[in-house]
Amino acid sequence: MDWQQIFATRTARMKASEIRELLKLLDQPDIISFAGGIPDPALFPAAAFQDAFSQALSAETQDAALQYSVSEGYGPLRDWIVGEMGALGIPCSRDNILITSGSQQALDYLGKLMLSPGDTALVSWPTYLGALGAFNAYEPRYDRLDPQTNRGADDYARAAQPGRVKFAYMSVDFANPTGETLDAAMRDRMIDLADEMDIAIIEDAAYQSLRYDGAALAPVLAREIARKGDIDACRTLYCGSFSKTLAPGLRVGWICGASEVISQLVLMKQAADLHSSTINQMAIAQVAQTMFDSHVTRIRAAYVVRRDRMLAALSQHMPDGVSWTRPEGGMFIWLTLPSHLRSDDLLAQSLRSERVAFVPGHAFFADGSGTNTLRLSFSRADEASIDEGIARLGRLIAAGLADGD
Amino acid sequence: MDWQQIFATRTARMKASEIRELLKLLDQPDIISFAGGIPDPALFPAAAFQDAFSQALSAETQDAALQYSVSEGYGPLRDWIVGEMGALGIPCSRDNILITSGSQQALDYLGKLMLSPGDTALVSWPTYLGALGAFNAYEPRYDRLDPQTNRGADDYARAAQPGRVKFAYMSVDFANPTGETLDAAMRDRMIDLADEMDIAIIEDAAYQSLRYDGAALAPVLAREIARKGDIDACRTLYCGSFSKTLAPGLRVGWICGASEVISQLVLMKQAADLHSSTINQMAIAQVAQTMFDSHVTRIRAAYVVRRDRMLAALSQHMPDGVSWTRPEGGMFIWLTLPSHLRSDDLLAQSLRSERVAFVPGHAFFADGSGTNTLRLSFSRADEASIDEGIARLGRLIAAGLADGD
Repeated sequence: MDWQQIFATRTARMKASEIRELLKLLDQPDIISFAGGIPDPALFPAAAFQDAFSQALSAETQDAALQYSVSEGYGPLRDWIVGEMGALGIPCSRDNILITSGSQQALDYLGKLMLSPGDTALVSWPTYLGALGAFNAYEPRYDRLDPQTNRGADDYARAAQPGRVKFAYMSVDFANPTGETLDAAMRDRMIDLADEMDIAIIEDAAYQSLRYDGAALAPVLAREIARKGDIDACRTLYCGSFSKTLAPGLRVGWICGASEVISQLVLMKQAADLHSSTINQMAIAQVAQTMFDSHVTRIRAAYVVRRDRMLAALSQHMPDGVSWTRPEGGMFIWLTLPSHLRSDDLLAQSLRSERVAFVPGHAFFADGSGTNTLRLSFSRADEASIDEGIARLGRLIAAGLADGD
Repeated sequence: MDWQQIFATRTARMKASEIRELLKLLDQPDIISFAGGIPDPALFPAAAFQDAFSQALSAETQDAALQYSVSEGYGPLRDWIVGEMGALGIPCSRDNILITSGSQQALDYLGKLMLSPGDTALVSWPTYLGALGAFNAYEPRYDRLDPQTNRGADDYARAAQPGRVKFAYMSVDFANPTGETLDAAMRDRMIDLADEMDIAIIEDAAYQSLRYDGAALAPVLAREIARKGDIDACRTLYCGSFSKTLAPGLRVGWICGASEVISQLVLMKQAADLHSSTINQMAIAQVAQTMFDSHVTRIRAAYVVRRDRMLAALSQHMPDGVSWTRPEGGMFIWLTLPSHLRSDDLLAQSLRSERVAFVPGHAFFADGSGTNTLRLSFSRADEASIDEGIARLGRLIAAGLADGD
C-alpha cells in the first residue's frame, strides 16, 4: 500500500526535528547536554501539584475534574490569567483568553487560523524551530522579519505575491534560540509595520517570566493597547505558557487577544480536540493562585546562577573569533562561530570525542542558513558540568580553527 | 481591523456546533436532557484516579510526570493498549500506537494527514458530527458511504474528480448518532471497497467497549489483519478512547494502525502540541492496568438499565409513525419522525412547553438532510426522568401529528 498517494500535500513539510533526535542523547548518562530547552525538574512545584490534584479529585469537584468541559477553558484559570495579563499592562476579560494545550498548540492553531497555502509568515532569521514546525503544516512561505532594516510594507507585500502576508511571528523576550530581547523602539516599530501591512502579530511570550536582570519591557500587546485603547481593536495575539514556570507535562498555555479571534479559535479547538484536560487546568489554576510569583522567584534564582556560570565559562574557554549573546533571561545562549566552521560537523565530532551536546543553529533558519551558529541551553546543567562542558567545547572549536589555518 | 481578510479560507467551514449550544441547556435544572452524549460522572472511577495521580506524583516518578515527554506517548500506556488491541484480534506493537488527546484529536490528525482541499471523505448519512467538524478544517468534499447499495469504486472515484477519495470514516459499533452496528458482512465489504479504491479506512471505536447484549464483532482492523497477515499491510486506522470508559476530562485516546502512518502522525503531533499530558497518560495507564475490565463491567450494568428503560418508554409513549433504533450498546437511540415533521421545530417547542432536550438530527448529515430525525442519549438520565421525558416527548409529537392532519 502506497501511503504517500493518500497523504495530503502538507505532510511533505512535516520532517523529523533535529532537536527531537538530539533529546534522545540525554538518556546517555555520560553526555553533558546543553541541547534540550527544557526546565530542570528539580524546580517543579511537585508538592503543590500533589495538593492541587488531590483537591481537584475531592468529593466536591471530582465530577467536574474528570468530565468534558468547555472548549474555551476552565473559568477560574482564565480569570487568573486575566489578572496576570492586567499586571503586564494588558487589560482584558475572560472572552479574550483561550486555554490551549501548551503554547505549541497556540502556534499550531494560529497557523491554522490564518495561513492558506502560499500565504507568507514573517519570522526572524533564526526563529523558534517549533513555530516553523507548527506553521509548516499550513504550507506557507516565509520571509525574513528584520526590524533593524528599513524594509517597508510594500516590499514585504510584493515578495508575498501572489499570496498575502498574514502575520509576523516573534518571541520578544530572551527568544528561543538566541536569548535576545527586542527593545522598546523595535516593539513599537513592529506595531507600525503591522498596522501598515494590515497583518496580525503573534507575540510568543513563553519565557517572559524568566527575566534575571534588566528592566522588564511592556509586551507588544500592552503597547498596542496603550495606543488603541482596547484589546479588541488590537492585532497582537499573545501566547503564554505555564511550561517554563510551573510544569510542561500538564500541557497548559493560553492565547490572549481580540475576542473576535478568540471566538473563532474556540470553534477551531472544539473541532480539533474539544478542550484541554479539565483536571490539569484545575490543578494549574490552584497552583498559580497559591504560589505563582514566589515559585517564579525561586526558579529565577536557580537559573540566573547557571546563566552567569555559562557566560563566565564561555569568556574563559572560547577562542577568538567566537561570539555569543548575553541574555537577560530565559534558557539559551547563541554562539556564532567563524563562518567557515559548520556546527553540525562540530556536533558530530563533539559527541564522538567530547561527549558534549548542543543544537546546531541552521535548523532555526527558515532558509537553512546559519550553518556556523549553535544554541546552548543552561537550564538543566549543574555548575560543574557547565564548566567542564564549555571547556571541552572551547578546546574542540580551537582545534577546528587551528585545522583550518 | 477586518480579521476576515486575515483568516485562512478553512475558517469559513468552522461553525458553532448545535450540540455545544444545546449542552448549555444542561445547566438549567428543570430541563430533562437527552441531548448530551457524555458519560454519567457518578460512574467515574474517582478513587482510582485519586490513587493514580498521587502515585504519579510520588518521589520516584514526579519529575517524569511533570516534564515534557515523547510525542508518541507514554510507553507503559502504549503497552497496555497493545495488549487490549491483541485481545480484540489486532496483534500489534508499540510502534503501531500513537496516544492522542482524546479520539477527537485522532480524527483531526487523520483529516490533517490525508485531506488536501477538494479531496473526498466518504461518510455515512448521518455520521458523527464531531468527525465532520474535524475534517471540515481541511476543506474536503463529502460523499455518501452506504455499504448497503451497490455503488462501486468507479462511481465514488468519478464523483470525487478532480480530487481523489482519501478515506472512508465509519463508527461501526453503536454509532453516534444512530446507535447502529455494522454487521460482519458489511465490515468485510467495506474492506473490499477500500482495497478496490486504494483508500484508508478510519474506524472510530469510541463506544466499542460499551456492548450490553449480542455477540461482539471483530473490528474492521482485526478482519483486515486476518486477511493480510500484518497490521503494517493494512489500510484501517483504528481510533480508541478512554473517554467513554474511564473519564473524558483527561483527554486520552489513541490511534492504532500501520507503523508508517503512526510515524508520520508522530511528526504531526510533535509540531502541533508536542505530546498529550504526561501525568494524565500515567494516571490512565495506572487505572487501566488496575481495573479496566471490572470498571467497564460496572458501567455497562448501569447503562443497560437506562437503555432498556428508554426503549420501553418509547414503545409505550410514541405515536404510530415514529420509528427508532434498538442499539446493542453505546449511549444513543435515533428517532425518525414522519417526514413532514421537523425536529428542530419540535425541539424549540419542547424546550418551551415540555422542558425536554434532544439533538435534532440534520446536524449529523453532511448535506443537512434528515430534518425529521433526532438523537436521544440515555447515558445521563435516571429512570424516572427517562419515563417522564419520553412521555412528554411522545405527547408533543402526537400533538404535532394531529395538527398536521
